[in-house]
Order: sequence, then C-alpha cells, then structure tokens
Amino acid sequence: MLSFIVRSALTKNRGLWHLGCSAVRAMSSSGPTPPFTTLSISHPKESITHVELHRPEKRNAMNKAFWSEMVDCFNQISGDPDCRVVVVSGAGKIFTAGIDLMDMASDVLQPEGDDTARISWNMRKIITKYQETFTVIERCPKPVLVAVHGACVGGGVDLITACDIRLCTQDAWFQVKEVDIGLAADVGTLQRLPKVIGSRSLVNELALTARRMYADEAKSSGLVSRVFADKEAMMAGALEMAGEIAGRSPVAVQGTKVNLIYSRDHSVAEGLDYMATWNMAMLQTQDVMKSAQASMEKKSPKTVAFSKL
Amino acid sequence: MLSFIVRSALTKNRGLWHLGCSAVRAMSSSGPTPPFTTLSISHPKESITHVELHRPEKRNAMNKAFWSEMVDCFNQISGDPDCRVVVVSGAGKIFTAGIDLMDMASDVLQPEGDDTARISWNMRKIITKYQETFTVIERCPKPVLVAVHGACVGGGVDLITACDIRLCTQDAWFQVKEVDIGLAADVGTLQRLPKVIGSRSLVNELALTARRMYADEAKSSGLVSRVFADKEAMMAGALEMAGEIAGRSPVAVQGTKVNLIYSRDHSVAEGLDYMATWNMAMLQTQDVMKSAQASMEKKSPKTVAFSKL
Amino acid sequence: MLSFIVRSALTKNRGLWHLGCSAVRAMSSSGPTPPFTTLSISHPKESITHVELHRPEKRNAMNKAFWSEMVDCFNQISGDPDCRVVVVSGAGKIFTAGIDLMDMASDVLQPEGDDTARISWNMRKIITKYQETFTVIERCPKPVLVAVHGACVGGGVDLITACDIRLCTQDAWFQVKEVDIGLAADVGTLQRLPKVIGSRSLVNELALTARRMYADEAKSSGLVSRVFADKEAMMAGALEMAGEIAGRSPVAVQGTKVNLIYSRDHSVAEGLDYMATWNMAMLQTQDVMKSAQASMEKKSPKTVAFSKL
Amino acid sequence: MLSFIVRSALTKNRGLWHLGCSAVRAMSSSGPTPPFTTLSISHPKESITHVELHRPEKRNAMNKAFWSEMVDCFNQISGDPDCRVVVVSGAGKIFTAGIDLMDMASDVLQPEGDDTARISWNMRKIITKYQETFTVIERCPKPVLVAVHGACVGGGVDLITACDIRLCTQDAWFQVKEVDIGLAADVGTLQRLPKVIGSRSLVNELALTARRMYADEAKSSGLVSRVFADKEAMMAGALEMAGEIAGRSPVAVQGTKVNLIYSRDHSVAEGLDYMATWNMAMLQTQDVMKSAQASMEKKSPKTVAFSKL
Amino acid sequence: MLSFIVRSALTKNRGLWHLGCSAVRAMSSSGPTPPFTTLSISHPKESITHVELHRPEKRNAMNKAFWSEMVDCFNQISGDPDCRVVVVSGAGKIFTAGIDLMDMASDVLQPEGDDTARISWNMRKIITKYQETFTVIERCPKPVLVAVHGACVGGGVDLITACDIRLCTQDAWFQVKEVDIGLAADVGTLQRLPKVIGSRSLVNELALTARRMYADEAKSSGLVSRVFADKEAMMAGALEMAGEIAGRSPVAVQGTKVNLIYSRDHSVAEGLDYMATWNMAMLQTQDVMKSAQASMEKKSPKTVAFSKL
Amino acid sequence: MLSFIVRSALTKNRGLWHLGCSAVRAMSSSGPTPPFTTLSISHPKESITHVELHRPEKRNAMNKAFWSEMVDCFNQISGDPDCRVVVVSGAGKIFTAGIDLMDMASDVLQPEGDDTARISWNMRKIITKYQETFTVIERCPKPVLVAVHGACVGGGVDLITACDIRLCTQDAWFQVKEVDIGLAADVGTLQRLPKVIGSRSLVNELALTARRMYADEAKSSGLVSRVFADKEAMMAGALEMAGEIAGRSPVAVQGTKVNLIYSRDHSVAEGLDYMATWNMAMLQTQDVMKSAQASMEKKSPKTVAFSKL
Repeated sequence: MLSFIVRSALTKNRGLWHLGCSAVRAMSSSGPTPPFTTLSISHPKESITHVELHRPEKRNAMNKAFWSEMVDCFNQISGDPDCRVVVVSGAGKIFTAGIDLMDMASDVLQPEGDDTARISWNMRKIITKYQETFTVIERCPKPVLVAVHGACVGGGVDLITACDIRLCTQDAWFQVKEVDIGLAADVGTLQRLPKVIGSRSLVNELALTARRMYADEAKSSGLVSRVFADKEAMMAGALEMAGEIAGRSPVAVQGTKVNLIYSRDHSVAEGLDYMATWNMAMLQTQDVMKSAQASMEKKSPKTVAFSKL
Repeated sequence: MLSFIVRSALTKNRGLWHLGCSAVRAMSSSGPTPPFTTLSISHPKESITHVELHRPEKRNAMNKAFWSEMVDCFNQISGDPDCRVVVVSGAGKIFTAGIDLMDMASDVLQPEGDDTARISWNMRKIITKYQETFTVIERCPKPVLVAVHGACVGGGVDLITACDIRLCTQDAWFQVKEVDIGLAADVGTLQRLPKVIGSRSLVNELALTARRMYADEAKSSGLVSRVFADKEAMMAGALEMAGEIAGRSPVAVQGTKVNLIYSRDHSVAEGLDYMATWNMAMLQTQDVMKSAQASMEKKSPKTVAFSKL
Repeated sequence: MLSFIVRSALTKNRGLWHLGCSAVRAMSSSGPTPPFTTLSISHPKESITHVELHRPEKRNAMNKAFWSEMVDCFNQISGDPDCRVVVVSGAGKIFTAGIDLMDMASDVLQPEGDDTARISWNMRKIITKYQETFTVIERCPKPVLVAVHGACVGGGVDLITACDIRLCTQDAWFQVKEVDIGLAADVGTLQRLPKVIGSRSLVNELALTARRMYADEAKSSGLVSRVFADKEAMMAGALEMAGEIAGRSPVAVQGTKVNLIYSRDHSVAEGLDYMATWNMAMLQTQDVMKSAQASMEKKSPKTVAFSKL
Repeated sequence: MLSFIVRSALTKNRGLWHLGCSAVRAMSSSGPTPPFTTLSISHPKESITHVELHRPEKRNAMNKAFWSEMVDCFNQISGDPDCRVVVVSGAGKIFTAGIDLMDMASDVLQPEGDDTARISWNMRKIITKYQETFTVIERCPKPVLVAVHGACVGGGVDLITACDIRLCTQDAWFQVKEVDIGLAADVGTLQRLPKVIGSRSLVNELALTARRMYADEAKSSGLVSRVFADKEAMMAGALEMAGEIAGRSPVAVQGTKVNLIYSRDHSVAEGLDYMATWNMAMLQTQDVMKSAQASMEKKSPKTVAFSKL
Repeated sequence: MLSFIVRSALTKNRGLWHLGCSAVRAMSSSGPTPPFTTLSISHPKESITHVELHRPEKRNAMNKAFWSEMVDCFNQISGDPDCRVVVVSGAGKIFTAGIDLMDMASDVLQPEGDDTARISWNMRKIITKYQETFTVIERCPKPVLVAVHGACVGGGVDLITACDIRLCTQDAWFQVKEVDIGLAADVGTLQRLPKVIGSRSLVNELALTARRMYADEAKSSGLVSRVFADKEAMMAGALEMAGEIAGRSPVAVQGTKVNLIYSRDHSVAEGLDYMATWNMAMLQTQDVMKSAQASMEKKSPKTVAFSKL
Repeated sequence: MLSFIVRSALTKNRGLWHLGCSAVRAMSSSGPTPPFTTLSISHPKESITHVELHRPEKRNAMNKAFWSEMVDCFNQISGDPDCRVVVVSGAGKIFTAGIDLMDMASDVLQPEGDDTARISWNMRKIITKYQETFTVIERCPKPVLVAVHGACVGGGVDLITACDIRLCTQDAWFQVKEVDIGLAADVGTLQRLPKVIGSRSLVNELALTARRMYADEAKSSGLVSRVFADKEAMMAGALEMAGEIAGRSPVAVQGTKVNLIYSRDHSVAEGLDYMATWNMAMLQTQDVMKSAQASMEKKSPKTVAFSKL
C-alpha cells in the first residue's frame, strides 16, 4: 500500500522526471539526474532506461543518499509504462567500491536505544531498510541488466546479485568484502549469491576469504553470462541485449521475470501451479496473436507494436 | 525502504499529528481526525491509541479514502514510540457494513488495459494494494485489539482477522459476504480466518454460504475471546485489557507479537530457531531486571517505568 | 494429464450417465447407480449432486470397488458443469463402518514382491492409490457437504475430513479406528483431522485411544458445524445449505474452495499472493455485476441466473 | 549421533535405572528418583512410565538441574522398550510455578562475552539448550500425557504444549507468564500454543496480558481434552487412558505420534507422501494380523501380546 | 488413483504393446509404434526402452496427439517391470521444433467460456494438462536419458529439463522460444531450467531474449553432461550409459531417482529425514547382499541378476 | 540440550585434549590422536584445527569407530574457542575408500527386530545416526575446508559435500558408489550434492552410474573450487586459505557460515529476514570498529586481534 502512495506521488511528478531525463539520452552522462544526487538516469533507446551509479570521484561508493535514491528510482521505473528494460552501470573508473563507510558509519554503527535490546530493535529496522534497496530491483517486473567494469566490491555484489542478467568487462573483479570489516554480509549477498552461481564451494570461499574473483572465473562460475573486451563494447552489448528484450511482448517478458523469481523460491510443483494460475489470464493477450503471426511470416517479434503494460 | 521514507516524512509531521490528536482524548469522538476523513484517532489513556472507523452515517462503509488512510494511520502508529497498544472500533450503530461498493466500483470493477492480460495486470496491482490495507495491521509490532458491535460485514471480517485480539458485544454478528457479490474474498478472510478459528467446517460454511454468525457462535468457535453485554461495557473492557498490555515491557510485548505471527506461518522447529535468534539480543534489556524485581517484590509490572521502544 | 484422458472419456459417456441418474432424483434411493456398485448418485435439486454410500446391508463398509468408484464418481462431478454442490451421505442404519477388511485383506495385507524392499515398493503404491480416493474430494472444485448419521468409523473419518462442510445427527459418533487394528491411519485422518478441528489434545486422544466421539463433542470441537435431531432433519438441512451454495456464482464459490484449501497449506503471505493472481482473472466475470445489482435491489443472489462453469 | 552416544551410555546403566525405579511403583512418590533431583520416576502399570516433577517444597519450580534432567529422562524413555506411554504430573500442591528465577538468573541473565555480539552468541546457545528440554518430549516417539492440577505457570505452559494429551483438574489454571518478567516466551509456548488450541484471539490475549486461564476455558478452548474433579480422579483417569494406549500395538501407536507431529508442520500433500513412505514398511508387522484377528473375534486389542519396539 | 485405473487398463494390453514393440528393436525406426502416432517405441537392449519423437517430416513438432501420447507412454513405462531405463531422442534432422502452433492453436488460444473468468478457468485446465505431459517423465521412477541433436526449441526445452540426464551432439542448439510468441513459458522451463543449470544470469538471458545456446555453452553451463561428435556416437553413448544403469539394482536406481527429485524441492534436513524413512524398508533387499558380494569378488554389478521391481 | 551435556563434559576434558593435541603440530602425523582411533588431530597454525582421516593401511575406510569419533571430534571443535577454522584431509595414498563394509555389515545389514516393521524401525535409527556423522560438520559454526587427494569414494562424497570449501589434487577422483552396492545413498550425497554443484544432469549421471569424476570435471562443475598439482601443494594452499579465514573476525566468519547454510534451505525473503534478526545483535561487536579501522589504515584484517568466540 505504501508503495502505492509513493507511486502516486511519483506519477504526478512524471512530467518533471521526463523533463530531467530527456536531456541525458546518451550512455555517457555528465552528472546525476536531479532530484537524484548519486544516480544518472537516461533513455538511450526506446523503452530502455539506463541507471548509472554516478559518484565517479568517490568510485561510486554507496552513501546515505544512494540507499534511498535507488528505491525511489526503481519504484518510478516499476510504474513507468514507457520502460521495458533497465540497464545498470557505473560512471568513471570502476563499477562501485561498495558502501561508503565514512558517510554511513553514524547511521549503521550507532543506532540509538536505551539498552541493548532497543539498540538491536533499531539496528534491525536499519538493516531491513537497506535490504529493501536491492529488493526493489527484484520486485521491479522489468528485467534489469547490470554491466560491471573495473571493481565491484561489497555492496556492489549485493546489488548485482539482485539484477537479472550480469555482464562484465575483461578487467572486472568482484569481492564479497564484508568479512573484512567484521560483519556477515546482510543486504543480499549471502542470500542471493548461492542461488545465482552453481558452485557452493566457490560461494563459501569468496564469502569467507574476501578474495577477489576476476572476469574469467566470474564467467566460468556463471556469475556473469558474458564478458566483453572493454567498457565500450560491454555497453554496446548491453544495449543490444536490452533492445532484444524491449522489442518483445512486455506481457511475456515481465511474466517471465515474475515467474522465474517465484520458481527460485518454490518447489517445481508450486511453481507450475502458480504459472498456470498466472497464465490463465496472461495468455489472453493480443500479443500472442501478433507474435505468432510475425513468427509465421518469419518476421522478428521486434517488428511488432505491442501495447504498453 | 519505502516505508522508511514515508515514516520519516511522518515523523516530521508528528507535531501536527499530536496536535490534531490531543483534542480527542475521549472514547466517543465527534468526527474524523484530520487529515483523515474516515478515521478518528485518539489517545484515551497513556500509550494507547484508539482508531475509530468514523463514517457513522454510511455505517462505516469502506470507501476509497479508507483503504489508504488505514495504511497511513498504521504506519504512523508503527513508528510512534508513545503508542504501545491499539484499539480499533466503529462509530455509530454498527462496526462496519464492509466495502462501499458505490464508491469503489469504478476502481475495482473497471481497471484499464488494452486487452485481458493488461486489465488483469492492473487488477492484480489493485488487489495487492487493498490486501496491504490490512496487512499493515499485522506488520505493526504493537498489539491491535478490535472491538466489534452490531454488524461486521465483508471487508470488516478481513479487517478483524488481521487484528490480534477480537472482542464483541452480545448483539454483534459477522458475515463473510463476498460470495454474495460474485467473488472469492481476496483481501485476507480466506487466508486468515482458517488460522484464527478452530473449526474448518465452520469456516467453509461461513465463506460458502455467506450466512451470519452471531456472538455466541463467534465466542464458542474462538473468533472472539470475549463477549460483552453492550458497547459501553466492551469499550471499557477493551481499554482495561489494552491497559494491561501497555503497562508491560514493550520489548516483551512487541517481541511476543512478532514471534506469534512468525510461528503461524512456520513449523515449530523454524519458529524456535527464529525465537532464539530474536531473543539473543532482546533478552539484553533492562526490562527483564526491572520486571523480575517487581515480580519478586509482588508488584505489578504496570508499576514499572519502561523506556520507550 | 491422465485426469484429462479419463475426463474426456467420461464426457463422451455423459449421455449415459445422465440417463442413469435421471431416474434417481429423490434423496432415498433403492440401490447403487450403475455402473457403480457401492454408490448411488442422484440430483435432488438443480445443480446439486447427491452421492450416497450404498451398501446398507454391509453398513456401507468400504470394499475394493468403493475405492475406485469414488475416484470415477468425483472425476465425473469435477467435469460436470451441471453440478455446483455435492452432498455425501450413507444409506441404511449408519454412515459407514469403515474399511471392509475381509474384502480388502488380500490386497492390502499381501502385496507381492521378491523381498522386503519390493513388497514395500508395492505397498507404497497401494497406499498412494487409496489416499487418492479421498484426495479427489478435495481436488474437486465444487464444495462437498457430508451428512453423518449413526456411526462413522475408520475410513469414514478419512473420508469426512476431506469434505468441506460436516453435519451430523444427534446419534452420530466418530471413531479413528486404525490403531485398533495395528496401524497408523494412512489415508488422510492423521494429516487432515488436526487441520480440521481446533484441539490438538483431542485429536491425539482420538487417534491414540480409538475412543468414540459423540455428536456433542464433535460440535464443540468443531469437527461438525451443525447437529440435527435425526437423519431426516439433517438431509433437509443439508439440501437447504447446498441450495444456498448452488444459488450463488459458481466462479465465486469454486474460487473460494480452491483458495481455502490453498491457504491451509501455505503461509498468509503466500495465500494472499496466490489469491491476487487468481482473482486478477476471476474478477472479470459478469457474475460480479449481476450479483452486485441483485444486492442493490435487495434480491437474493439465488434469483440471479449465472452461466455454467 | 550425539544422542546415540548418550543413549548408549544410558543403556549400559539401565540396570541401575531399573533398580532405582522398581522401588517407586505407586503414583504417589516419596522423593526424586536418583540420579535425578527434580524428577521422580515410577512404573505404575506395565509399559507405563510416570514422570513426576518433584520439588514440591519449591512448587516444582524449574531449577538448573531440572532442565538437564528432563533431557536425560526422556532420552532414557525413548530408548526403553519396556515403556509405551508416559504420564507427566507434579508432586505437591501445584503442577509447577514455572522457571526458578533465583536459581537460573546467573545462567540466563548473565552470559559471558567480551562484547554484545559475543554475549548474544552465548545467549543463543543457552536458549537453544533450554528449548531442547521440551523438544525431547516431542521427539520421544511414545505418547506423553500430562496431568495438571493447581497452577501451571510460565515454563509449565512450555512443557505441557510439547506433550501430546493434556488433562487437568477443576481447580487448575494456566498462565503464560513471560511478558510479566519482560521477555517474549522463548522455549516453546509462542510456537506450540497456537497450534494446540483453536482460537488465535485467545492465544494472543493470554500471551500478551499474562492473565490466568481456568479449567473451563482450557477445556472449551481445547487446551485440555478432559477435566476431572480432583487430582485423584485425574490420576486415575490418566492411568486408565495410558493403559488404553499401552495395550495397543506400539508400531501403530508410535507411528501415529510421529506422523501427527509431521503433519502439524507440513502441508496435507507432504504429510500423505511421508505417511505412505512410512507405512510401506510399518504395515509389514504381525501386529496388524494379530489386531485384526482380535477385532474379528470381538476381543479388545489389549488382549493381544505385541512384541516390544 | 486415476493413474491406477489407467495403469490397470494398460497392463491388460501389455501383450499388444509388446507385440507392437518387438518389431522395432533397432535404434533407427521406420515409423510411430501403434497406437501412437507421434512416438516410436523400441527395446534396443534388455531393460531399456527407447522413446523416439517420430514426426520427422514435421521436425517432431508437438501436435495435439503428442501431448496425450507422452502421458500414456510414460504411464506404461512406469508400470512396466521389464523397463529399467528410458532413452528419449528425436527421429529425423532435429530433436524437435517445439509446439506445433498450427495444430494446437484452436485448443490453446481459444478456450470456451461465457466471460473472461470462465475462459480463464478453462485455460488453466488446459495449461495444467499440458504441464502434466512432462511431469510424468519426472514421476516415472525409472531414469530418463535424453539425447538431443540438431535443434531443441520451445516445448523441447520443457521436455528435456524434466528428464534426468541430458546428452547432445556437437551441432545441437537450444532455444527457450516462448517469449518470441508473446508468452511466458508455462509447461516447465521457467520452473525447471534454473534448478538444472548453475548460472541464473544465463537462465534469465535465455528466457528473456530467446537466443540460441549451442552445444559448448550447454556443456559448460551444465545443461548437458556430455557432448558427442554426431548422432550416431551419441546414440551409442546413450545406450551404453543406459546399459550401465540398467545393470544395477533397480531398488537402488529408482530409489536414487525418487530421492534426488525429493531433495531438489526440500531442505537438506527434510531430504535426510525422507531418505531415512525410505531406506528403512529399501535396505531390506537381497540386492544389497548380491551387490556387495559381487563387489568383494571384484565383479561388476552388471553381472548380478536382480529381481524385477 | 544433549549436545550441551556432552559439550560440558568435553570442556572439562579440554586439558587432556589439548595435551594430546599439542604433540602433533605438523601436517604429517604419525598416527591417530587418542582417544580417537581413526582420526589424527593437530593444530598446524594458530586457530586452525587439522582433522586427518587416519587409517592409511585401510585406505581410510570408514569403520564403526569412525562414525562416532567424527561426532565427538566436531562437537569438541564446535565448543573450542581456540579453533576458528578446520581443515580435513586423509592420511596415506587416498582420501578415503568410503564405508568399511566388512566392519559395518553386522550393524547396517542386520538390525534386530521381531518383524519387518521392527527391523525397519531399528534400521531408521541407524541411518539417522549415520546421517548425524556428517551433519555435525554443517552444524559446526566454524568453516570446514576439505582437501582431497587420490580417491574419494562413497561415504567420502557424503563427507565432503557437508564441508564448506572443497579443494583437490590433480590426481583426485570422486565416485558416488552406493548404487553399485544396491542402495540409494542415504547419509547426505543425494541431498547435498545437487545443492553444491550446478549441473543436475551431471549429479544424476554420477549418482545413477557410479562412474568416476576426475579433478578437471570436479573443477569445471564447481564441486571443488581449486585444484592443486599434488598433495603437498594442496595442503600448503589449504593452510594458507585457512589462515586467511582464521585471521578475520570470528563473529563475521561464523555468522557468514550460519547464514549461508540457512539461505540454502530457505527462500531469499526468509533468508533476508533471518539475516536482519541475526545481525541486529552481531553488528554490535568491537570487531566491526577494529576491522574498519584496519581497513582505513590499509592494514589487513589479519593484523587485528579479535576476542575469542
């Protein structure tokens, strides 16, 4: 319900939002898109939204503002019928250095409270809040591609494991950093990483030793599904893949994402039951007919005009 | 995360909110408390918040405004350290006539969409939004008592099954009405009623026939735990019970609610594991020492001053 | 898929089936309805199917034929658009004496197999087959009322706990008999009885001591939701209640049953999610409009003509 | 595995244990049975073990020794083929006053640790240990009847909700006491009570207000399945019921307990699958034949001699 | 239960079935095996059943007949004690082109119904029916190897992910095609593919872009466990592997399959409990002794004659 | 609770234990460490415990003693604050030949019992006991690395899949052997192997054919995360990795292990909730401050002195 209130508020401001965005239609941006201070939003192609982590001078470290701006940003995207796919990347030299400890310390390390129980109570609220920052990516029904170059550290791994498709450059490396600063990763890595790659021995090694994993191992372990020579090639590749997805029926694409995530957390039997209940309505779309016809005429689904969702 | 944003916004307005509330400290109210139009909020005793459904001339029917005001209201309450217990009741002749079909029809019955799939997509969003209206009650860590007099119809049953303790008057009756208007109840009754009372035969009978259940059967089936002669006696009883709860350690009381709800949805082994993990922090509270001492001195826990939570 | 094959076969024979049935439109039957040898099927009122256990001379003991006829019968009913509610009762002096040990012994007690593992393998197949006999009742989307008089023993308790609404006469008694013949009840009682009544102490006592429970305790414990003076009154009451249900929208009624059963086996959050996904399609029915209009005109939903489902 | 080690150790000492026990064959005992200091063990009838809380001068308050003696005791019972049913009751004026705060305080309230995390770590170990004290009752495959007279407070409610069948005297009362000493009940009440009785409103009221519940409400809510006039009548009744159970096939009785507990924590479909897999072996017992024959000869199963299990 | 009826019917026809089959003992078949029109069944070696998709002129596209023949076929196999392993492959140039849209369209795209709710109701029945087509493979306790050459498109991926072991030729490619025709894959791919391979990024990419995956990526991602130079080599390899499995104890082999599938959908603790309950009977087989003896004599288990299961 | 009793007993004997251990500080041991007969325990570096399977003349086959010594050993380790990481390896030519059939046969193959049901009952106890042998590894909160050289057969695979990180030499091979001796693997392999590697086709192939898997495939499938040239290099590598882990905050490291295992068996949402509840206490550790400071000073966390846990 809450989400609805905010969403309504956001809808009213969409004018502003589009205004702010229209200026930044290229993949290289000159700064954050107001009202955001850590994110640059653009629309490089029709139906594609590009979300760029944009604090390059701070190696895109995740400061206080970032954690709430991501939520606002993805809630806007969830409700924006003009967006069908999202690409996330980082401005500057690396994807992200992870949490901005200096900026966050007061918040995370010093919650108020008259005794340990009360401090813990407030700590739990804070952790839950930060978990939400990446869960919004998962809850957004539009597929989210993430393109990583350079380093992806700590909170960065939490972020990318909540995305749907992961790409990286040859020079990228990944580090589950939390154990190095005395804590068990608590905003998603320990929950999602093991469900994202196929080697539990590797997951445990990464999480317990905080060692770096480079692009080749990221590819062979399945963390990323494609590696590119450099950032330029990767961004081109990401845009192309995003274009493939954006050109297909949004009913099909978003239903696929919703059910893939449902399946991850349920038995096969449960997943099939949910799927049948989902599709009893979703198959009743013109998109099937339009797509089938294009298919018989040997045309790409991308040539079809689908209604917005 | 979203909840945090809104909560922060609300916190800033707490001055206003308390101002608005301070005028209505009695259990009988003269009208809704701004900015609400369907709810009257008051504080009849320390640490107790009274939420009154307040559209008596419309038999407290649930109109569009109600569905979002409940969310705002309970989010405020969740974040209000001065509130330890909530009492919900209805102004006027009955508790509630349920959904205000006239006011809601356009919203519920006519979602937009270019084809069946898209209409369904939007319908699902709407249902999810309305489900949230009662789930906030459950997510609020403070215990919620509900006091029912006269009729409690349709949406009213969805509401009360999301509360923690149910009381009613001798003249109260309950009706799972949805099947009468051609639909399966979808904002909580079918999910919560069977977990709230002990006879599945009765649950099914009520949900499939839409027959009324009167106070005696509500008591013997366990839907309510107390029946009072009339509304006055019930409100006095509700306030007294609320006082008992408000006088105890909020760490203990709210931890109890959180874990009771967790247990409902998990196996005993899962519940025990979560409980141990919860209490490893929560037992580290001054409240245990304060309470234990009062107990040894044969004093009521209500004589102890506990820090806010 | 299997169910589909059989269902199709049955549909083709519906002419025959209706022919066979049309002769037996009264609640008292003179014998089993071919091709059944243990069941008598009739249609006492529009949209209501009456399934009578009919081996009165054997106290409706469940012989080999019974276990497969129930499956055929309920699969027919599931696919019969003319049936909206089912009433199950027993012919003769009692509801049922339970399993017909003499007839079944060779099957149940002596499965083939060259060693213990192979005998066990076949035993498991047999148990799974017998479990299916009552699970079909639950899988049938039409509500099933069961009306018990006299004794309901052993397999009878497995049967009635798979039904949706339980009624009984003042002289009825119930007995979880299995422990008396050296086995743990394995076709439903141990799984369903605890989810059907509210006292686990009572469930355990009944299952471990095999003592009889009489009508009053069945009512106060919630096993049945209504007790009638005698069989005649009960059958009239059952028919009336069935009529109430049959007169309402089948989309609403059957959706209610499906979701009530789903909720029993899932958390509240899971149940709500499934419900929203279910109703995104099911709310798009003329029945809501028709029912709502009748409601506003103060007419009973039973006056409305709903399309078949 | 651990349990095995201890069990083996215990088995070796069974001579001693039986020696110690043989002296106390009456239901009224003169003191704890060595090596226990808080429990008196006796065998009032064949195959029945009586476990009496025995610190009457301290109102059977649960001191440090009690928590570990219960585990030893029930592990012995689990492995003792001569025991088929257990009866638990309290010596002296009341069943139990609950936790012995004075004796336990140092342990529970002051776990060691260099910082909050380490104290929490140790606290969690302690809670988990205490939870185990009552979980052993549930894990013991022999049915456990508990007979409550006078007061059953705090830890007493944790204990009885882990038993299978609950009986009480007319003067008994029950109190979920924890909230009065500043904590959420963490050794079983919040997890098991809601699955044991049918009214969630009542469960919440009891846990949040710490009010007493008397015998009549305990009966009508389903917490107990029988109420007796006084302790003598209750103990006679408990022994009789235990005798009924002890006289039946231990394969049937213990299989019933195991599957009833499995069903509580699983869906009906899961429960049925487990049951079929369980019984594929367990139906291959002479007990079925012996019991069936007795049944056909109209003899009680208690007349049959079953092999030990 | 249903399955039992059909199975019995089939057993009676086994004469016919074996007659039909005996003619086609080679791996290359000349046409479908009556009564099937889309499948060719043969027995290339003892205890091995070969199921060949056989509409080569239509690139083994899945027409209406196929969906029900698969169910009949695998139900026969499940009940056939002479079959211990199944090999599935495709006749002609490719494995399968997926669903035969032309043949299926009337069924899938146009379910009957007086309003959207009723159309949805029927649509759900149809989807559930088609899901069953592949679930029978999983429910069949005999291991199923699938050998893919050329293309495996759309429904083909649903099929192979329900098999136990996947092999392919160097020229094979795989395509999750559904999004191209406007729908979310609903007969198994979205549920099983993520549990079958280890890279979620890859799963999402394949399902959202409908791009082809070639043999090398299929191998490195774990979709197939072996790649062969061409179809001939693959069929020889498949037969050899099938022979390895067929030569081992059917109690061991089929118990392994059942428990591997159980484990996929349950926690480790649940899986271990089920396994122990399963093996308490299944270890009581002569096969253990026979196998152990062969092992000590350094003989292959394939030299042992095991009883049928 | 049981575990506590034993643990206390063990703690008292720690003097002895350390005495016994201090002599064997090198990675090559000369024999089992009393009181163990199959395990050699040493402490090659601070905070690291080395557990060596030590029956080299029997190829480290798992005899009766082994199954209980592992439990004692890992319970000691769990309670030993001086141990932060465990390394498991095998003495002699291979890691392990698996179960010692000769030594175990009497126990496993011949449980007592008067009929099949009673034999099954005892068989289940035995299996459950043996499952516990490897589950203790998982329940131990300290990370366990396992280093495999030569062969790892049967029970060896059960063992290593319960460890956290798997390493092997180039000459290592793995074999799920159980199907060769007529049984479905029942002490962990079927439950854990599929959650440990990413290719289900491979898991099924290994478990159904009992074929060997060599180091390269073990690496590419993700079973091991590192392959070393020979045993010496592997042990050096294992020690180095163990040192990396041992040098980090034990609160962080052990919290990471606990939550990684929790995540494996729960949905992402459940995992996040548990994590937040866990860390509300665990973030209140000096280790975070100490680690953060080291991090800012560009020092390794290994330079920090953390309190014991």
